[in-house]
Amino acid sequence: MTVSIEEIKSELYKMGEKAVKAAQSLAAMTTDQKNICLEKMADALEANAQEIKEQNALDLAAGKENGLSDAMLDRLKLDDERIKGMAIGLREASELPDPVGTVLSETERPNGLVIKKVSVPIGVIGIIYESRPNVTADAAGLCLKAGNAVILRGGSEAIHSNLVIAKYLNEAGVAAGLPDGAVQLLPWTDRQAVGVMVKMDEYINLIIPRGGERLIKAVAEQSTIPVIKHYKGLCHLYVDASADKDMAIATIINSKCQRPGVCNAIETLLIHKDAAKVFGKNIAEELIKNGVEIRCDELFKEYCPKATIATEDDYNEEYLDLIISVRVVDSVEEAIEHINKYGSMHSESIISNDAVSAEKFLNLVDASTVYHNSSTRFTDGGEFGFGAEIGISTDKLHARGPMGLVELTTYKYKVYGTGQIR
Amino acid sequence: MTVSIEEIKSELYKMGEKAVKAAQSLAAMTTDQKNICLEKMADALEANAQEIKEQNALDLAAGKENGLSDAMLDRLKLDDERIKGMAIGLREASELPDPVGTVLSETERPNGLVIKKVSVPIGVIGIIYESRPNVTADAAGLCLKAGNAVILRGGSEAIHSNLVIAKYLNEAGVAAGLPDGAVQLLPWTDRQAVGVMVKMDEYINLIIPRGGERLIKAVAEQSTIPVIKHYKGLCHLYVDASADKDMAIATIINSKCQRPGVCNAIETLLIHKDAAKVFGKNIAEELIKNGVEIRCDELFKEYCPKATIATEDDYNEEYLDLIISVRVVDSVEEAIEHINKYGSMHSESIISNDAVSAEKFLNLVDASTVYHNSSTRFTDGGEFGFGAEIGISTDKLHARGPMGLVELTTYKYKVYGTGQIR
Repeated sequence: MTVSIEEIKSELYKMGEKAVKAAQSLAAMTTDQKNICLEKMADALEANAQEIKEQNALDLAAGKENGLSDAMLDRLKLDDERIKGMAIGLREASELPDPVGTVLSETERPNGLVIKKVSVPIGVIGIIYESRPNVTADAAGLCLKAGNAVILRGGSEAIHSNLVIAKYLNEAGVAAGLPDGAVQLLPWTDRQAVGVMVKMDEYINLIIPRGGERLIKAVAEQSTIPVIKHYKGLCHLYVDASADKDMAIATIINSKCQRPGVCNAIETLLIHKDAAKVFGKNIAEELIKNGVEIRCDELFKEYCPKATIATEDDYNEEYLDLIISVRVVDSVEEAIEHINKYGSMHSESIISNDAVSAEKFLNLVDASTVYHNSSTRFTDGGEFGFGAEIGISTDKLHARGPMGLVELTTYKYKVYGTGQIR
Repeated sequence: MTVSIEEIKSELYKMGEKAVKAAQSLAAMTTDQKNICLEKMADALEANAQEIKEQNALDLAAGKENGLSDAMLDRLKLDDERIKGMAIGLREASELPDPVGTVLSETERPNGLVIKKVSVPIGVIGIIYESRPNVTADAAGLCLKAGNAVILRGGSEAIHSNLVIAKYLNEAGVAAGLPDGAVQLLPWTDRQAVGVMVKMDEYINLIIPRGGERLIKAVAEQSTIPVIKHYKGLCHLYVDASADKDMAIATIINSKCQRPGVCNAIETLLIHKDAAKVFGKNIAEELIKNGVEIRCDELFKEYCPKATIATEDDYNEEYLDLIISVRVVDSVEEAIEHINKYGSMHSESIISNDAVSAEKFLNLVDASTVYHNSSTRFTDGGEFGFGAEIGISTDKLHARGPMGLVELTTYKYKVYGTGQIR
């Protein structure tokens, strides 16, 4: 489909207007009304599984033709189980507590004004994502539960799947009382359309980009709308001088190997020289036993003669693979400095039996989530008890770390008076 | 001073690096340490009042030469009282509770992990502002108290004043233990420098632009750093059918006339037709008695024959002057629709004795602060009990409405384990 930029603009502005109106109606919906819509949307996905699989097959065929890797094709694929997974996600969203309407604080001023700070929906949220079509349903469900309208822009490789999912979400939602325009998907997947979308600050209140580094950078650079980035996870684990050997090895292996392709896995291991002396060799052996390639500094090579020497690039790289860079440090301060220099402010852990070192690390490492004596793999909305997450923010404003329903709301001040004037 | 863009870039990057380092040290400072710095900075401004006035005289002379209005020159002027005012602001900041280190929530997960959500400084904050040189001290004081380094960029008309204030703030602060680089001011006031500054996302975590609409729009469009806009206040007061006549008149006059040049003054009055019938004439008389020019629709002109007819432009204009646009509406719903269409999401009030109408208005009007039976003039950090404010956010993310010390912090998750793996 070739369309002119003017056509895209005109259509997108119409979508924006529709979304703003829908958001106003959504903000007035009760929890029960929203939950019914979510349940009906879940039913609709299951009821139309056959058509969804057929449309998905078109994406898979095109993907194969375009030479997508097996891993990419797997991420793209929708089978009965994955369709059921989307439905379950929507039903779970319906069961989570409504984040809207919470009184966050209440004060009475000397002049008698009562000021209530109350959580409210953000308005219209734009989600820009790649490959996985299940994000279409997951993101829509969470945005709706928090009272927001959503404009989705998925990747070109999943366009048929995304369109059919969005169609049934919208149809079933509207039939159950959802305002038309609450769930909309861009029919265009080219960069031009994204360029228009991220400048629609009159209509969209927040952009959440999820995907590769290039996509996120491009969105952040172009957008005139506030962006909450879900950026890379260049995470570290630091083994302090006083660390327990078994705990250190178990948390390293878990942080690196349990799922190396995710953002809360570690990429670099830092070890205090005293700990390295005592069990550096054991750590190296365990890593190798688990199939991990080690790239380390000269000091660690002593304990792991087979390792290659790490370059500056290694400390800057999110491998997302069974590769780890290792560096020996002189002190917790040096570890903190390394992390604040190379880290992506995601998840950082210290293994230590020294409470002073640990607290220093937790206080001075600048990251969304800092751990003492734990694997880094727990940075996740589910693990945090949020019920679900829209992603993990690597930004510092509004939402940091796992973003759940609460982070999809903002607040307003409701002020109650009896005729106060100033 | 003419400098090349490369020179500006190189200098600004150095400032950025310095600020990042200073922010890391600041985050580790105790409340007492920060307070001592603030007090010494206050002393330094008072002790050097003479030099500050001399530098200010240069700005005033240049301003006169450049034909600045009397109002502008007055905003620019620093006398002993205003210098004392800056010092008092810094001392007040030292007395406010430290917003850093608050445990916002604490949960223990089934696996034994204890997750604490703790307030922390944002890091480096860039403040871009115009004319008033007192912002240099006020903004620096609040940013520091919240543990942030600050990079200030004031207007060209106040450059001599800003430079001397920043110099003494920095000198006194550093002598009292503040890291060098915690308070920095751009020596260039041209747009090029702003253009560089708002793209320094490696160094600056938040940009707060304060000033005219054009400045704020330009910053929001160019910035790759999150921006919290302190935009215009196009505020409304709606007189419901059931409103008390005296309360309506008192709050209208207060909202419009007490200080017409500020952002929480109203620009448009909406009146239910039934209320207009009963006391529309009285409202018009009181407004005229207070020197307010009325621009209204045909319906209100019945009660105010002298008024001119309002155009669409009137409903879109922030007069910041003794002018008001007036429109008669059929219902609270129509008032809400008007406000959501024309308002700047700042401060909106309903005067009503009908609790249902009032709650509908508070819930459905999309603004940072919504009032029932009150003047709109209370949207202010001081009036809200925040002690001080960096401004009033018209954005929806991170901070909405009056921004105090708490809004100058973010949070991190500190997670305490005993060797948990996933």
